[in-house]
Amino acid sequence: MSTIHVVLHPKRPPGVEHFLRGIPDIVLHCPDDDAGVTRALEEGASVLVTYVWQDAFLVPSLRWIAGAGAGIEQYPLDRLRAHQVVLTTAAGVHAECVAEHAFALLLALTRRIGESVRNMTRRQWIELPGEELAGKKLGIVGLGRIGEAVARRAQNWGVSLVGVKRHPDRYQGCLTDVRGVEQLLPVCEWADIVLLTAPALPDRSALIGARELELLGAGWIVNVGRGSLIDENALIRALTSGNLRGAGLDVTATEPLAAESPLWNLPNVVLSAHNAGDSPGFGPRWGAIFSANLAAFSGRGDWCNRVVQPPGVVP
Amino acid sequence: MSTIHVVLHPKRPPGVEHFLRGIPDIVLHCPDDDAGVTRALEEGASVLVTYVWQDAFLVPSLRWIAGAGAGIEQYPLDRLRAHQVVLTTAAGVHAECVAEHAFALLLALTRRIGESVRNMTRRQWIELPGEELAGKKLGIVGLGRIGEAVARRAQNWGVSLVGVKRHPDRYQGCLTDVRGVEQLLPVCEWADIVLLTAPALPDRSALIGARELELLGAGWIVNVGRGSLIDENALIRALTSGNLRGAGLDVTATEPLAAESPLWNLPNVVLSAHNAGDSPGFGPRWGAIFSANLAAFSGRGDWCNRVVQPPGVVP
Repeated sequence: MSTIHVVLHPKRPPGVEHFLRGIPDIVLHCPDDDAGVTRALEEGASVLVTYVWQDAFLVPSLRWIAGAGAGIEQYPLDRLRAHQVVLTTAAGVHAECVAEHAFALLLALTRRIGESVRNMTRRQWIELPGEELAGKKLGIVGLGRIGEAVARRAQNWGVSLVGVKRHPDRYQGCLTDVRGVEQLLPVCEWADIVLLTAPALPDRSALIGARELELLGAGWIVNVGRGSLIDENALIRALTSGNLRGAGLDVTATEPLAAESPLWNLPNVVLSAHNAGDSPGFGPRWGAIFSANLAAFSGRGDWCNRVVQPPGVVP
Repeated sequence: MSTIHVVLHPKRPPGVEHFLRGIPDIVLHCPDDDAGVTRALEEGASVLVTYVWQDAFLVPSLRWIAGAGAGIEQYPLDRLRAHQVVLTTAAGVHAECVAEHAFALLLALTRRIGESVRNMTRRQWIELPGEELAGKKLGIVGLGRIGEAVARRAQNWGVSLVGVKRHPDRYQGCLTDVRGVEQLLPVCEWADIVLLTAPALPDRSALIGARELELLGAGWIVNVGRGSLIDENALIRALTSGNLRGAGLDVTATEPLAAESPLWNLPNVVLSAHNAGDSPGFGPRWGAIFSANLAAFSGRGDWCNRVVQPPGVVP
């Protein structure tokens, strides 16, 4: 086959570059910034590996965006379709890891690990009575592969579980109680913990605002989905002057989180820097999807995780 | 029945005092320090609620020590027996909570929550690629109620599990591979994670020393058992100049941990202050045991969690 030029965006998860460097059939370009990515594409590259999107990347030679992330909210899907550009994602690659990270954030809240680490920095041995998940009610909002991986892990923890999903009728998993999004308010009222694993809404509006947080009351919220899912001002109010007991956030409304945000310094907040999916397992698992799709791109085999396909192509 | 005078040691888990104040049949004494405890006992109290022991507490009127903790290493068991003092413990009361805390510490290591919180104190958004438990090998050392609660929670996490127990032939639980203590070295060599839930050895010697840590290699260790189980100097060496990737410790060799200990400041250590078992569930669960034993003490019903019984009493 003819040589395939692949441009790798400078922002990428660990393991992706290592994997791509091991593929003999491609020429890999690794520019240092967005302008370099555009230049490399303008020189005729047909494949872009990225989770960052700039409209300048949409050059005539671009045929396939191999997404390095699970989300698609950053891409102009209609324009990609019009330009006959295929978009694939890394959906599912992160699922097990993100589910573990969601538990890490949740248990850091209930067992007060964040406060314990702050005490470590002051060399202070202070007993911090925590809480138990056993007996609590957990609402999982979003039941894609990550939400299901959370639900599976929670099976033996003595926790009552309810899921929220756009199409509950299509659910096939381990939960016995799955509701539609229109039931979000009663689920917030029922739950001790709301755990968000959903993707961003198309218009990036918040699912969880002041009303939902008020109904959650003296509970905890964990977000490993997207920062836009929570009204961050309402969250800060609920954490500082409301009943909310804690928030574990891998994602924030803007990233990196602004230095002046009160979230950095609240003892009942545990933040990580959008790294819930980062693990040594990412590179090989992402690579398996990329390899399958590289074959499909070359006319052999089926696409995997294809979100956008050119018009007229049989799915 | 005659009025029972109960002395409550000033160090006690949350919820114990609240529970005792609600019992009509006892007179509760709450001194402020060890000397006050001794004085209250010398005035004729027959029951002591404590997890702290001083030999001065062994006065002639003492008949029953209602332990507020799970461990018994602090008590002079032979002398209690000789003085016909019953000792009961809170064993099992903490199990679910401590198991959750063990996961909180472990996930704080693999998902680098401790480092994330240290970054929070500097308002720094730094992506920290972590590790996954899925696919890892976990050795659980100690399979009492806490170890079993850990094993049960780990069932759906894609983790390989091996247990170590003094009497593997007596094991009845969810693990399929349980070894005797003589297999500790090969288990350390096999494992990615060693999680200690065992009680202190009678002579307070370490189970985990330099050799065990060397065999564990580039792994993680979590201790929710007793600080004496790990040779702390060997641990610090393995964390600073060896391969060990991290340690999650709710217990240390001396408590509180000395201000000059290097453990406070190691980024790959997460410490909590011996509070793994503290939760709002403790008081009511401990109270149920105390109530049963108060009845037994008054000649009605059977003892629960009795470790030491006077000689000649039919068990």
